[in-house]
Amino acid sequence: MKKLINKPEEVVKEELQGIELAHPDLVKVFYDPDFIVRVDAPVKGKVGIISGGGSGHEPMHGGFVGKGMLDAACPGAVFTSPTPDQMLAATKAVDGGAGVLHIVKNYTGDVMNFEMAADLAKEEGLEVEAVVIDDDVAVKDSLYTAGRRGVGLTVLVEKICGAAAEEGRSLKEVADLARKVNSLGRTMGMALTSCTVPHAGKPTFDLPEDEMEIGIGIHGEPGRKRMKLQSADEVVEMLMDPIISDIPYKSGDEVLLFVNGMGGTPLIELYVLYRKAVEVAEKHGIKVVRNLIGPYITSLEMAGTSITMLKMDADLIKLWDAPVLTAGMRKGI
Amino acid sequence: MKKLINKPEEVVKEELQGIELAHPDLVKVFYDPDFIVRVDAPVKGKVGIISGGGSGHEPMHGGFVGKGMLDAACPGAVFTSPTPDQMLAATKAVDGGAGVLHIVKNYTGDVMNFEMAADLAKEEGLEVEAVVIDDDVAVKDSLYTAGRRGVGLTVLVEKICGAAAEEGRSLKEVADLARKVNSLGRTMGMALTSCTVPHAGKPTFDLPEDEMEIGIGIHGEPGRKRMKLQSADEVVEMLMDPIISDIPYKSGDEVLLFVNGMGGTPLIELYVLYRKAVEVAEKHGIKVVRNLIGPYITSLEMAGTSITMLKMDADLIKLWDAPVLTAGMRKGI
Repeated sequence: MKKLINKPEEVVKEELQGIELAHPDLVKVFYDPDFIVRVDAPVKGKVGIISGGGSGHEPMHGGFVGKGMLDAACPGAVFTSPTPDQMLAATKAVDGGAGVLHIVKNYTGDVMNFEMAADLAKEEGLEVEAVVIDDDVAVKDSLYTAGRRGVGLTVLVEKICGAAAEEGRSLKEVADLARKVNSLGRTMGMALTSCTVPHAGKPTFDLPEDEMEIGIGIHGEPGRKRMKLQSADEVVEMLMDPIISDIPYKSGDEVLLFVNGMGGTPLIELYVLYRKAVEVAEKHGIKVVRNLIGPYITSLEMAGTSITMLKMDADLIKLWDAPVLTAGMRKGI
Repeated sequence: MKKLINKPEEVVKEELQGIELAHPDLVKVFYDPDFIVRVDAPVKGKVGIISGGGSGHEPMHGGFVGKGMLDAACPGAVFTSPTPDQMLAATKAVDGGAGVLHIVKNYTGDVMNFEMAADLAKEEGLEVEAVVIDDDVAVKDSLYTAGRRGVGLTVLVEKICGAAAEEGRSLKEVADLARKVNSLGRTMGMALTSCTVPHAGKPTFDLPEDEMEIGIGIHGEPGRKRMKLQSADEVVEMLMDPIISDIPYKSGDEVLLFVNGMGGTPLIELYVLYRKAVEVAEKHGIKVVRNLIGPYITSLEMAGTSITMLKMDADLIKLWDAPVLTAGMRKGI
C-alpha cells in the first residue's frame, strides 16, 4: 500500500489536526467526538446545516464548512459512517435558534446514525430536519445502501442550501429546497482503478489493466457493468444517457453540469470529459448554464469520474452564485 | 494505459475546448497557435504576465489565467515546451502598453523558446522581461534542465506578481518582484508512483511497490534517491530539512507553506503532511503565516507531494492576500 500516512488508525485524526492548523480563519475542530464547525458558529438566527459521512471523500464534507455552505461536518473513519454522538455534538454546536438541517447521503449507516442523532437532539429541545440525498442513477440497491446512493449531487445541495440559510430562510424552507434539489439532480460515476482503504491495506476491488467499471459507487461498490476500456467520449455517453433519461431532462432545460474527479484523475482529463458532456447535453437541447469541474467528492486515489446534472431555475442560479468561503469552494469573498 | 482521453494527440486540444466551454467568463482560448488569455485582455496600462510550459501540470498554468494572476498561458504538448510562436502570439495579445513579463520554469526547452519569443516580440517593438524560476533544491542538474528545476514556487510567483501587476506596478518592479520571490522560496518533491504520458502509453519510470523516490521532478525526472517506503512524518522531514538548510531559513522567519499534491494524492494525505510540516517549521522557530494545500502543480496522475516554503514580508503577504479570479485559484471576487 503506497500512501503518505503514518498509522492507518491515525489518518483521520491527523487530517483534522492539519485542517485545524491550516484554516483557523474558517473553522474550529473538536475531537472525541470529532467534528468541524465554522469559526463563528453558532450563527444567531440562521439555520445550521450539518453533513457528514465516512472520510476519504475530501474535500467533502470538511472542506465545505464555512460561510455560505456547511456549519459543521462530522467525519467518520475512512468509508465508515460517523457516530450519533458526533452528529449530536455538532448539531448543538451550530444551533443558532433557527433549527438545524442534516444533509444525509443515502447509506444505511449514515441514515440510521443521523436519525438517532436527530432523535437525541429533539429530546434536548432542538429543532432538526433531515433530508436524504439519493441521486445515483446507476443501481437501485447496493452494498451499504437500500435505494439509490447519495453521491455528487450532495456537493450542490450543500452549496445551494448553505446560501439559502445565509439569506435567512427558515428550516422548513431550507429543507424543502434540499428536497427540491435532490429531485432535480442525477449522477452517475465510473472507475478506471480501485482505491485502497488505509486500514484494509489492499485495493477494494480488482480491475484488470484493460477494463473499467461503469456505475460504480464512491466506496468502490459494484456498478452496472465491467467492460473493456473505452474512449473518454464513449464514457461520457454511457454516463450522460442514463442521467438524461432518468428524470427525464428535456429540451429547453437549463442545467448545472458537474464533472467530478474521483481523486486520481488528472484535471486535463476532466476538461476533455466536460467538452463532450456539453456536446451531449446540447444534442438533447439542454443548455448548460453553470458548471463545476474538479475533484469535489472523491474516493481516495481512485481514477475515474462522475457526472452530475442539476436542473436549474432562477432561484437555484442565484443561490449557486452566492458568496461562499470554505477551504474547498470559494467565491465572492 | 488507463486514461479518460480520446486520441493521445488530441488531449491538449480537447482540454482547451473544455476550458473554453467551461470558463467563457474568465478566459478566451485561441488555437494554432494555442494559448489562453484572460477575457478582458489586453488590460490597458497594466503589465501583462505570461507563463507556459508542457501540459500535464494542471491547473498550472491555464487554470491560473484571470484577474489577479496570469494574463495568458501557453500550453505545450504533455511535458513538452510550448513553441515560440505560441509565446509571441500570447505576448502580443496581452500587451496593454506597460510591457509583458514572461515567467519561465527552468527547463532547457522552455528557457530557449521563451528567449526566442522575447527576441521576436522586441523586434516588433514590445517591451518584454523574462524571469526564470529555479526553486527545486533536490538536484543541481537534471534531465531537461541545466541548474535547478522550476517547480512549486512558480504557482506562488504567478499569484504574487499577478497581484502586483493588478496594482499598477511597472514591468521592472514586477520582474524584480518575481526575482525576489524566486530568491526567497525553495521546493522539494517526492513520488510514490510514476505517471504515464498519453503518447508514451506506459509509465515514465518503474517504482517497486515498496519504494518511493525523494527529490523527483514534475516530469518524473530522477531525484536524489530511491528508498523503502517511509511514514508521512518521515517523508516531510526528508523534504523540509533540505529546504530549510538551503537558503537557509532561520528562526523568526515568517513563511508561506505550500503542500502540493502531484495529481494522484488524496487531499486527506496532504493535510496529514501539512500537520507535520508546520511542526518541523516551528521546531526551527519558523512561523507559518500563510498556506496553500492542494494539487496546484501536478504530474498527471502521479502520487506524491512537493513542499514549498516562501519567506514572506508585509508586501508579499499583501500581494498573496489580494483578490484573484481564475479557474484554479480564487479569493475575494
